[in-house]
Amino acid sequence: MTSTFSPSDASRPFLAWQGILDWAQEHYRYRAFSKDERIPARTGLLYLVQQGLVRLVGTSEVTSNKTHLSFRLSQQSNDEAFLGFVGIGQPFEIVAPSPFILDAYAHIDRTSVVWLYWNELDNWPLFRREVMEAFRYQHQRKLLWLTTLGQKQTIDRLLGFLTLLIEEFGEPCDRGYFLPFPITHAQVGSAIGATRVTVTRLMGKLRQRKLIYVQDDHLICLPAFTPRIGRGGPQVG
Amino acid sequence: MTSTFSPSDASRPFLAWQGILDWAQEHYRYRAFSKDERIPARTGLLYLVQQGLVRLVGTSEVTSNKTHLSFRLSQQSNDEAFLGFVGIGQPFEIVAPSPFILDAYAHIDRTSVVWLYWNELDNWPLFRREVMEAFRYQHQRKLLWLTTLGQKQTIDRLLGFLTLLIEEFGEPCDRGYFLPFPITHAQVGSAIGATRVTVTRLMGKLRQRKLIYVQDDHLICLPAFTPRIGRGGPQVG
Repeated sequence: MTSTFSPSDASRPFLAWQGILDWAQEHYRYRAFSKDERIPARTGLLYLVQQGLVRLVGTSEVTSNKTHLSFRLSQQSNDEAFLGFVGIGQPFEIVAPSPFILDAYAHIDRTSVVWLYWNELDNWPLFRREVMEAFRYQHQRKLLWLTTLGQKQTIDRLLGFLTLLIEEFGEPCDRGYFLPFPITHAQVGSAIGATRVTVTRLMGKLRQRKLIYVQDDHLICLPAFTPRIGRGGPQVG
Repeated sequence: MTSTFSPSDASRPFLAWQGILDWAQEHYRYRAFSKDERIPARTGLLYLVQQGLVRLVGTSEVTSNKTHLSFRLSQQSNDEAFLGFVGIGQPFEIVAPSPFILDAYAHIDRTSVVWLYWNELDNWPLFRREVMEAFRYQHQRKLLWLTTLGQKQTIDRLLGFLTLLIEEFGEPCDRGYFLPFPITHAQVGSAIGATRVTVTRLMGKLRQRKLIYVQDDHLICLPAFTPRIGRGGPQVG
């Protein structure tokens, strides 16, 4: 078993995927969500994206001004951070010790998830292995994400962030690769520690320098310069 | 199998740890490093920290100014980001597709690591499972880290970052919990996207507000307010 990121790994389907889906339907472990609807995910369960796209967000109650016992007042807190997308065939889980809160939302319409208890995975050892490989892959991606967020200039963090997103979720287009779903400037800002206004301004700069393009419907496109582009990680074929 | 973060999980030793160490010594898969020495880790191998502490750093070549084919000119690049520590009994691996570079360094003297090829783990299925659980745990921690880095105010990112570090690696002291090894302001800055100067200034503010203390030898200490503190994840007991 070598590290992921190779095309053979990228196209590898979950071996027991159909069996899991059938089982989940039979056991009422399936639910569909509409765009921006919160997925009431609980700690201790494993979730799998069956259709659509899931958006993970985090809220930190560690601030230098407020008490650490404060509670979030609203779901749409300004300090909610975008933590990434989870695509079809990928697992996610919600583990957030105080003072952190993680939440999952359907990013697009017709997003559906199934869920299992971790011990139920013992019935499908090969599938369990695939899930763990998927988390290993997601961890690798987050290290790259952190690499970008350590850059001093906000515009570099922005470009690095978009590059990573499109590397993982992008689809080919005339000019290069584009992100096939919308993401708001506020969401981008919440990932890179910048305001929506700053993101809008810097996106303009990146467009001027022809480092990004914006397609119809505000889809973000990167010119084809990156050596390796492609969906990575275990995924439904 | 439930999610990690519980004390029982935290104290769980690697089951086959001694066997792995003996095997690694026999097969010359062991090496010690001095402080800040680079560990020449290669893609496709799994590394385990036997003694000391490993520091992961990342370099992104995605910038809005330079060409994407640029190469790093120095190991001590200003845009090297601190990605986290790997403690005793924890695994790490170096997977970095272009245009990202990951590196591992010994953070303190007498740091030693052993390494294996992934397929060799098939000989120790229980150990393999522990390694994958450790990566799953590390992934969970990185999501919290990203939550903190999404905060708009640099001082909040700083406090959140220190809280996470001390939550994971802290040891009890009179006033609360302290990080039992030094970390430079430049390293902290490279994690949260700030300069060394900014970190020094904001650390002063946090000390004034009594949100952090600094012990002898510049060790950072958090007062004991955080509900859950403790080393987490699989680790040598």
